[in-house]
Amino acid sequence: MSLLYGNAVVGQSGGPTSAINATLSGVIRGAYEAHGAGIIEKLYGMKNGIEGFLREDFVSLFEIFDTPEKLQTLETTPAAALGSCRRKLKDHEKDADTFAEILRIFKKYDIRYFFYIGGNDSMDTVLKLSRYAADHDFEMRVVGIPKTIDNDLMATDHTPGFGSAAKFVATTVKEILRDVSVYTMNAVTIVEIMGRDAGWLTASAALPLLSGGMAPDLIYLPEKVFDPEKFIADVRAALEKHPAILVAASEGIKLANGHYVGEGTDSRKVDAFGHTALSGTGRVLEELVKDEIGCKVRSIELSLPQRCAAHIASLTDLRESVEVGRGGVLSAIAGATGVMMTIVRDNEGGEYSFHVGTADISKIANEIRRVPDEYINAEGNGITAAGLDYLAPLIVGEPYIEYENGLPKHFVIE
Amino acid sequence: MSLLYGNAVVGQSGGPTSAINATLSGVIRGAYEAHGAGIIEKLYGMKNGIEGFLREDFVSLFEIFDTPEKLQTLETTPAAALGSCRRKLKDHEKDADTFAEILRIFKKYDIRYFFYIGGNDSMDTVLKLSRYAADHDFEMRVVGIPKTIDNDLMATDHTPGFGSAAKFVATTVKEILRDVSVYTMNAVTIVEIMGRDAGWLTASAALPLLSGGMAPDLIYLPEKVFDPEKFIADVRAALEKHPAILVAASEGIKLANGHYVGEGTDSRKVDAFGHTALSGTGRVLEELVKDEIGCKVRSIELSLPQRCAAHIASLTDLRESVEVGRGGVLSAIAGATGVMMTIVRDNEGGEYSFHVGTADISKIANEIRRVPDEYINAEGNGITAAGLDYLAPLIVGEPYIEYENGLPKHFVIE
Repeated sequence: MSLLYGNAVVGQSGGPTSAINATLSGVIRGAYEAHGAGIIEKLYGMKNGIEGFLREDFVSLFEIFDTPEKLQTLETTPAAALGSCRRKLKDHEKDADTFAEILRIFKKYDIRYFFYIGGNDSMDTVLKLSRYAADHDFEMRVVGIPKTIDNDLMATDHTPGFGSAAKFVATTVKEILRDVSVYTMNAVTIVEIMGRDAGWLTASAALPLLSGGMAPDLIYLPEKVFDPEKFIADVRAALEKHPAILVAASEGIKLANGHYVGEGTDSRKVDAFGHTALSGTGRVLEELVKDEIGCKVRSIELSLPQRCAAHIASLTDLRESVEVGRGGVLSAIAGATGVMMTIVRDNEGGEYSFHVGTADISKIANEIRRVPDEYINAEGNGITAAGLDYLAPLIVGEPYIEYENGLPKHFVIE
Repeated sequence: MSLLYGNAVVGQSGGPTSAINATLSGVIRGAYEAHGAGIIEKLYGMKNGIEGFLREDFVSLFEIFDTPEKLQTLETTPAAALGSCRRKLKDHEKDADTFAEILRIFKKYDIRYFFYIGGNDSMDTVLKLSRYAADHDFEMRVVGIPKTIDNDLMATDHTPGFGSAAKFVATTVKEILRDVSVYTMNAVTIVEIMGRDAGWLTASAALPLLSGGMAPDLIYLPEKVFDPEKFIADVRAALEKHPAILVAASEGIKLANGHYVGEGTDSRKVDAFGHTALSGTGRVLEELVKDEIGCKVRSIELSLPQRCAAHIASLTDLRESVEVGRGGVLSAIAGATGVMMTIVRDNEGGEYSFHVGTADISKIANEIRRVPDEYINAEGNGITAAGLDYLAPLIVGEPYIEYENGLPKHFVIE
């Protein structure tokens, strides 16, 4: 395979994370290396993902990021500096015009490298574009670089962005544990954590156990059927031990009939992708405890900060997020296309280390990786030592963050 | 006045903050100095405030904190390490037995110094105890040391604990601003911030303006009557300028008829002090925007982390919190009693500095300090430059925080 010379474009799609800009920085760093080698001439940034691409709304990333300091600030800036979109490409048979337009833009700008940072839906876009380009004899490399706080993509040990979200969740739960422990009366606090189909983020609420020994009394993941009667019995049993009970529950826990617990209060809403938008799981559990037990109870929804609290990002996650971006460029130069970058854990059991790999996207897109049984206790209300072993290294380390007038400095692309 | 020799006791009361343990550390530091001078023999810590005092549930703080490192860890540990309570003493005429019991305990343990760290209700306890001891010819010094994230105590420039809460709010709002700015469609995000009667914490949502230039489009405080029609007009006008609108609203905003906006969804609840417990302000505004404008809208309640997110504490706040604790001990030794420690701002306009002062509690207890008109814009939906000038120095600086397995280390008194 010969070297492919031309320009590159990178975009960000789907919900933001605290680490998606670290991956953008990694792509820019990799592209600079390829630029130095004479392979990539220009690196375009598409504004608002594929939507901006179709509008030819490009910025020149080599011009914007002309010093290492700017890249460092970018790496600790939450959300998507290039903007994002929720658009998912249809099959090219059903939307031939859009695909023809994309190919026209590839040719117009001599774009030979397409990097798309996103979640499951973005990987689907990468798969379709790589196949379309190949079918139309346009030589190019299309690489997907994963991100999601949900950690639910196949083929990778974990996803960039998850470690920082997990560190936020674990830190906040640890702080809430201190807060709720100050009173002597019986009180139940329910923390609702993001995760529609997979309970990885909720499981990370158990991590304070490795840092001081306290953890939520009860943890409920979507992987196990949620039984309200068992839940009330669990809470009663916990109250026998001490007065302040902390419950961590995933927004996506479901009843035996398949309905989300969170459907109880809010009407069933559907987002742009046809996913059910959930809210109110914590409130439903709060009402349940109030009705059945009658003690003081409150619920806390961790909400958006789970995906944007970059001030408490995991250094491990940010480093890996940079490396999958950089590795995506280097893999593409080496010939990879239609692939998703992955993180490979080197040595389970020993000291944690990782390397970057690739996986065939056709085997990944639209599938969900759930928390395995071995990470969930037999009662279905806690995390096992094996689960803690898996999660623990992902939240380690604190990045250097520059503060400006008391607040973390962010890099904003106008 | 001659020196008063004997033992000391310290307690924490009311809702926790991220800085109340820094004040406890300051009391311990001050007591160590007095111990070195032969004035204070022992420093007792009462568990769960006055409730633990009445149970004679004491710990020996010189024994627990026998190294400077332990005090440093305590200073960045959120919530009340000694535990807290919500108990407010009645007037001694109405509850003579309790006051007699307290005096008995003072005598039994030769307690000559009583330090109580808390909010408005705790200062009331200090006032009653200092008067009761004086009336019963028991020479002692009773000193209140303020804490509240609400910043609503009289006589002090600001309250210990406020700066850290404000830094959490401003940081989180800044991060949410980045998050909501990634999409191009119209969307309104409403952030509900604590503050029943005073809007200080909500006002601090404006601080990102001084760090990068972005801030919420609209800010509503309890100090101004909330007009739903004006609110909808404000949101519409903001949407004319850009698609992603951020609204910061205090939980305590009220309608012209005197009812809380948050009463709209939740039934009116009353806490142990007879205060109305609010929730749902953000949800009411969310429904209002949905009904009247119809664009995408969501609400976020910042909830408990506002008072316990010690990992993003303000160094300025923690230093001041230590100093009011330490200063409380030194003032008591010098003869002060029935006073609350205050923070005095030295030089408004110039570089920020402070010193510790005292104020007569009888002029403070049960009063509320509200955000003055000069800090709120004429429209009643934003913060003035004068308000930003007041708030800005209070969030400056980041403390050193020790991490253990990726999470902030806390000091727990068993």
